Parts: sequence; structure tokens; C-alpha cells
Amino acid sequence: MTVAEKTRERILRHGMDLLSQAGLSGVTLGVLAERVGMSKSGLFAHFRSKDEVQIGLLDHVEEFAYERVIAPAMEAAPGLPRLEVLFAQWCGWAQRAGLPGGCPVAAGLFELDDVDGPVRDKVFSMQTGWRGLLSGLIVEAINEGHFRKDLDVEQFIWELNGIYLSHHASHRFLRDKEADARAQTAFRALVDRAKPLARPKAAVVKKTGRK
Amino acid sequence: MTVAEKTRERILRHGMDLLSQAGLSGVTLGVLAERVGMSKSGLFAHFRSKDEVQIGLLDHVEEFAYERVIAPAMEAAPGLPRLEVLFAQWCGWAQRAGLPGGCPVAAGLFELDDVDGPVRDKVFSMQTGWRGLLSGLIVEAINEGHFRKDLDVEQFIWELNGIYLSHHASHRFLRDKEADARAQTAFRALVDRAKPLARPKAAVVKKTGRK
Repeated sequence: MTVAEKTRERILRHGMDLLSQAGLSGVTLGVLAERVGMSKSGLFAHFRSKDEVQIGLLDHVEEFAYERVIAPAMEAAPGLPRLEVLFAQWCGWAQRAGLPGGCPVAAGLFELDDVDGPVRDKVFSMQTGWRGLLSGLIVEAINEGHFRKDLDVEQFIWELNGIYLSHHASHRFLRDKEADARAQTAFRALVDRAKPLARPKAAVVKKTGRK
Repeated sequence: MTVAEKTRERILRHGMDLLSQAGLSGVTLGVLAERVGMSKSGLFAHFRSKDEVQIGLLDHVEEFAYERVIAPAMEAAPGLPRLEVLFAQWCGWAQRAGLPGGCPVAAGLFELDDVDGPVRDKVFSMQTGWRGLLSGLIVEAINEGHFRKDLDVEQFIWELNGIYLSHHASHRFLRDKEADARAQTAFRALVDRAKPLARPKAAVVKKTGRK
């Protein structure tokens, strides 16, 4: 690894911590240079604008989170088991990964709702990618027979996102010790609604051969 | 109204717009003074610190939202009808009220999770008050027989908050036209889970006197 690569890595590590604590608006070239312990002009050799550093950090968050949230889920069996692992890894991932603050993407959804530009576009494309991944896992769960065929996949994702955001607010802002348990209860209820309707008992009895 | 009161009102109006667009960290004495069209020292006569102006604005948001979200709900019948009106008024309230950005409290939950101090305390107490109000309405719905007696009220509030946050993210950040309909579907499902279990059909038939 060249010196420049090492420096870039140091910037990204400190920058991700700053992003997690102070949000996108808190990541300015001045504050970041101070954190990294370099001059603003030294930082400027790696990132030439505030937008560029913020997008670089979001790219880094994406890779960082992939290993911690998505990769472990892919080791579980396809369908509902995989979705369960993904959900468990997703909630509170930033804290478990050692970040000093919250999830930069969740914060970005509320910070950048009124700001157009390349940073918003980046968060938007991260959301689209994430929702695409969830959609794939949910369709897998339908194909495996874990979820019913007529499930409204977009609605499931919409509500799952709500559970994640409520967990983030209760876990991080309200510092509620019940946050994990509440998220699990909400997730179970959402999954139960997605399951195929149970066949009437009489039919089941018939099929097992009992009279 | 004195001149000082009129000026204060003008500051609060501009400040609430700024807060709604730029979040708490965007409300600095310098930017606000520029928006109001007064000098920083003139603003200083009304609010003596960034914390003081942010707390003043949050107080103002509280009053402002009370009239628009809570008051209309109180005109509905107690229990579930009141909760339904409150939920409908809550989702998207900031936009309907003419604010140029999103809900300042929702944004604050993600912005101030890592920052201790009087502004965080203010948002925390607003959340506690809001959750207390929801709790009262849900208990009312239980007493009216709309919800079952063993309902986990805190879990209901937790999930309702998730629906609100997901609506905020999809409506404002993703600019999804389906946001209102998705929020209603999620709300109906949460309400259905809270309803008293239907009595077995046979028992109902017996009670109506049919054989």
C-alpha cells in the first residue's frame, strides 16, 4: 500500500466516525482535516470538495456495512432464515461495528430530504440498492413458500424500514433498553402477516390420514 | 403587540422554516439573522445563544403543531376514531402546515442522538410528551372496547412511530407518491392486531338466538 493509499484510508476511517456522529453536514474539510491531524490543503490532495469527501465516505460506509450486515446473512439458508439474519444484523449495526454514532444512511434520509445534489443522489442510490436487495430476499422467501404468493413486497419493505428507523430512534436517541426486543416483536408480526394463510384444520387432519 | 413581540414572532416564523429545511445544526445565529434581515447583535437581544434560539424554536414548533395535529383529533369521538384522526393529521403535518422542509422533531431524533445538552433534552421531553399523549389515546381505545385489554401499549406506540418515520423518509426523501397509502395500510394492520379477538362464530350464532 502506497503512502497516499494509507493516508486515504486514515481519512476514510476518521471521516466515517465523524459522519456517524455529526451527520453529513458535520463533515466539512476543515473539521475532518483536524480530526485526521493534517492540513486542509493536505486533505485537498485526496478530496477536492465537501461533496467529494461526503460521497467518498458514503462509498466507504457501503463497503464497510456490506461485510457486517449483508455477508453474514448470505451464509444463512435462502428465504426467511436469510431475511431474519439480515434484519438482526441491520438493527444496531453501526454501534456493533464500532462506529461512535448512528447509521449515516438513516440520518441522511432526514438530513438531505430538502437538499438536491450529488450527495443526496448518492444516499438515494444507496437506498435503492438496499431496497433492491431486500426485495430479492423477500421474493426468495415467497419462492421458498415461507411467504404467500400475493404478498405486497414493496409494502413489506416500507414497513421493515419503519421498524429499522424506530429501532434507531429508540435505541440511539431515547436510549431505550427494550429497543432490540421491540424491534423483534414488530418484525415477527410483519413476518406473520406475510406467511401463507394456514389451511383449515379439517383439511390438515384429512391429509395426515387420521379420521 | 409591542415591537419587540412582533420582532420575536418574525424571528420564530423564519426560524421554524429554517429549522424545517436545515435541521437543528443549520440554525445558527448568523444564518437566522440573515434570513430575518436583521443584524446578529439585533437577534442577540432576543436570543442569547444558539441553544436558546433552538429551544425557542422547538417551543414554537410544539405550539404550532398542537393546533394542527392534536386539536383536530380532539374533536373526534374518543378511542379509535380520535387515534385515526391524529394519525392522519400527524403524517405529513409539516408540509400541510406550509413548512418548507420536514418535521423538525423527526430530524432531531437522528441529528441529536450523540449530542448531550439542553437542546437534546428539549427534543427528548417533546418525545416523552407526545408518547404520553398517544398512550392516553390508546388506553382510551382500550376502555372504549376498540382495542383489547391486554394490548402492549408501549409496543403499539413504538410501531406507530416507525410508520411515521418510514412515511417521513418515503414521502420527503424518496418522494414516493405511494407514501400516504403505504402508511394507511401499515396503520390498519397495526390497528387490526390491537383489536379484541373475534369470538368464535358458533358462539355468536348461539347468542343471536338462531339455531
